[in-house]
Amino acid sequence: MPELKVLAFDVFGTVVDWYGSIAREAMAAPVGLSAEAAQAFALAWREGYRPAMQRVRSGELGWTRIDDLHRMILDGILPRFALEHLTEAERAALNLAWHRLDPWPDAPAGLLALRRRFQVCTLSNGNLSLLADLARNGDLRWDLILSAEVFRHYKPDPQTYLGVADVFGLEPSQVMLVAAHKDDLRAAAACGLRTAYIERPLEFGADGVARGVKDLSRSPDIDFHATDFLDLARQLECSP
Amino acid sequence: MPELKVLAFDVFGTVVDWYGSIAREAMAAPVGLSAEAAQAFALAWREGYRPAMQRVRSGELGWTRIDDLHRMILDGILPRFALEHLTEAERAALNLAWHRLDPWPDAPAGLLALRRRFQVCTLSNGNLSLLADLARNGDLRWDLILSAEVFRHYKPDPQTYLGVADVFGLEPSQVMLVAAHKDDLRAAAACGLRTAYIERPLEFGADGVARGVKDLSRSPDIDFHATDFLDLARQLECSP
Repeated sequence: MPELKVLAFDVFGTVVDWYGSIAREAMAAPVGLSAEAAQAFALAWREGYRPAMQRVRSGELGWTRIDDLHRMILDGILPRFALEHLTEAERAALNLAWHRLDPWPDAPAGLLALRRRFQVCTLSNGNLSLLADLARNGDLRWDLILSAEVFRHYKPDPQTYLGVADVFGLEPSQVMLVAAHKDDLRAAAACGLRTAYIERPLEFGADGVARGVKDLSRSPDIDFHATDFLDLARQLECSP
Repeated sequence: MPELKVLAFDVFGTVVDWYGSIAREAMAAPVGLSAEAAQAFALAWREGYRPAMQRVRSGELGWTRIDDLHRMILDGILPRFALEHLTEAERAALNLAWHRLDPWPDAPAGLLALRRRFQVCTLSNGNLSLLADLARNGDLRWDLILSAEVFRHYKPDPQTYLGVADVFGLEPSQVMLVAAHKDDLRAAAACGLRTAYIERPLEFGADGVARGVKDLSRSPDIDFHATDFLDLARQLECSP
């Protein structure tokens, strides 16, 4: 087995807490939703994400960045939350909430530990400027920010996973995808990448596991199972 | 005039010292050239760079990364330095000298200062993995590493300069190219970017100015003229 060299990280949900961050912005001015409505708003915005990307993956839409997909979804859900009164400028500013997502608490230090032994990069469907803003805001020390925008394909298209190996001049098995989503990991494994699952039990809110939208079980087809990045660093024997 | 937001940096010669770094590696084992021959070797390797990229820009070669262009040039110049004896493994290792170029002494601190006020990114013809290695080795804190590899065009093609503005969702005039080469800056200006010239008098060795291969004169068509990144940070009123 060739030596593992690069860890490629899914970002939304794996590195940053989109649910808590979007809900927080939806409670603040000018949106001003209740806590309960703000959580529903975060879920509704995120629920539009896969169908929107599918329209790009199928060719129905030409290449469209996540920033623009997020805005299309936002405009679609505003009536459901009685937010049609938001101005164009307010909508544009709210859409950038995805550039301000907070990292999970272990993420900055966990990445630093993992970076002592491996190159660490993103492999996200988020666009490059969004990922650059998250890195700056969260003090995330990537060796390289890679995005669907570089490959002009969204995950789980194979061009994204194989693209990481190609950029680094490596075999797919020298790259490991790190993600909180098993479908992403299985698509990477089908391309020959190694895989590490991170639990992130709060990704869909405090009751995500109870509601059955978050599955923390161990899966024998996934190479590593870790509670967070520091746990993964221990399992990969990165010096603290 | 819209507000300046992003500084995009040329890398070879502007951020890192390719001449001194390549000459140093050419003096060490297994190459083992004299100081004089090692300097000629660095210049010869670099001289092949523009013609090789031109073959890609003209369409004679399909998209080819700088790593592969560097290797083609290397194989071509080895006989001139009586280095045909280098093995395949030694040539491959030597080719990666371009991933180990040292930053100019002011570069890490200068970038940190500039980063307090602007987003800083690369815009280099170097490939992504090369730029990621330079960033790690030199502790260069980029917000984003952008490369000809992302745009599938080499500078001075307009797609590269305009590509930076597009990635950040900005007008071209909100981006400034920072480079030690006036032809690069003029191509950026033709696309509407602002421009900052950095002197780098040692780029072609201690006698580069005397030999006339390095021109440090002020040019009225270039917006800023700085001795180094710290000087540029002062001129752009970045807090120290």
